[in-house]
Amino acid sequence: MTMPKRDTYTPDSLLAVAVAVFNERGYDGTSMEHLSRAAGISKSSIYHHVRSKEELLRRAISRALDGLFAVLDEPGATTGPAVDRLEHVTRRTVEVLIAELPYVTLLLRVRGNTDTERWAMERRREFDHRVAALLKEAAADGDLRADVDVRLATRLLFGMINSVVEWYRPQRGNAATSEEVADAVITTAFAGLRAH
Amino acid sequence: MTMPKRDTYTPDSLLAVAVAVFNERGYDGTSMEHLSRAAGISKSSIYHHVRSKEELLRRAISRALDGLFAVLDEPGATTGPAVDRLEHVTRRTVEVLIAELPYVTLLLRVRGNTDTERWAMERRREFDHRVAALLKEAAADGDLRADVDVRLATRLLFGMINSVVEWYRPQRGNAATSEEVADAVITTAFAGLRAH
Repeated sequence: MTMPKRDTYTPDSLLAVAVAVFNERGYDGTSMEHLSRAAGISKSSIYHHVRSKEELLRRAISRALDGLFAVLDEPGATTGPAVDRLEHVTRRTVEVLIAELPYVTLLLRVRGNTDTERWAMERRREFDHRVAALLKEAAADGDLRADVDVRLATRLLFGMINSVVEWYRPQRGNAATSEEVADAVITTAFAGLRAH
Repeated sequence: MTMPKRDTYTPDSLLAVAVAVFNERGYDGTSMEHLSRAAGISKSSIYHHVRSKEELLRRAISRALDGLFAVLDEPGATTGPAVDRLEHVTRRTVEVLIAELPYVTLLLRVRGNTDTERWAMERRREFDHRVAALLKEAAADGDLRADVDVRLATRLLFGMINSVVEWYRPQRGNAATSEEVADAVITTAFAGLRAH
């Protein structure tokens, strides 16, 4: 049996531990007991910080969503031709995803079993719709190719962006930087991989 | 209590039921009891068809892998310039993924907790390496743009392809056909979304 350590957690550092456990075990598969063991403090110490597991989920998801929605208010996302705004949003979404990797990973994996999860999915859909609207506008401007259906293009763009949480591992020595990944996504999605 | 139905399952039809349950509950979260309830036959009837849950997993994963690896032996994947072989493999991978949607979905979600899952991940990595080698060859031929790292390009291409299992729902009336999805992936990945 390990001795519980002194509780020196801040709300943010406790959240980081919880999110790591949620991502490893799945939110549904995580109990307060698992969180207590991972944090090395007692369950009652955790309840000193938060009322419930669901509150931890809500805080973590909020952090991811705040980062993503903030992108939509940046000048690059609100001025200029739609296709350029779309590129800006794509680039910045990749950057936020990498900066907030565990939080966005959790957001992308929630399944809708609790109110908080359903709210997360609703907000995520809202974000997707905002980006889909940009694609539609860019297509209407004639700046996207006409031979790819806008809905399919939206799915594939998000498929590419969201895949980053599945394979990007910053701790690897040879990991690409956030900017390199964003560049690769932009180039692949907008200019294509084939040399011209 | 519902009456168990007469066991008229074939190996394939029982597998289809099991895979649907695995995809919904997760493989780890599925018990023989869940399978028995979903199939409407007793557990001992299921054991008449298969020795274990893991055998069902192995059969389902084999079906997905056989479909994917067969693509690599097609003439379009073995003759001609690497970039064309890569396009062929991309297109056919999307088509297999849609034709075998629940089986490939299961393959992409296994996590490595059992021997069968580890074997599935190993074989999946092997497939990815074969495709990565095609990208490398196409890049060496000068047929892929030089400003995207080949490893990143491989990740993003698979990100786009594999995302199909997350959003493609054939039962929806307005679903794109397998060919339309494959076309969209090819165009997006190789030519890019921007109009020229």
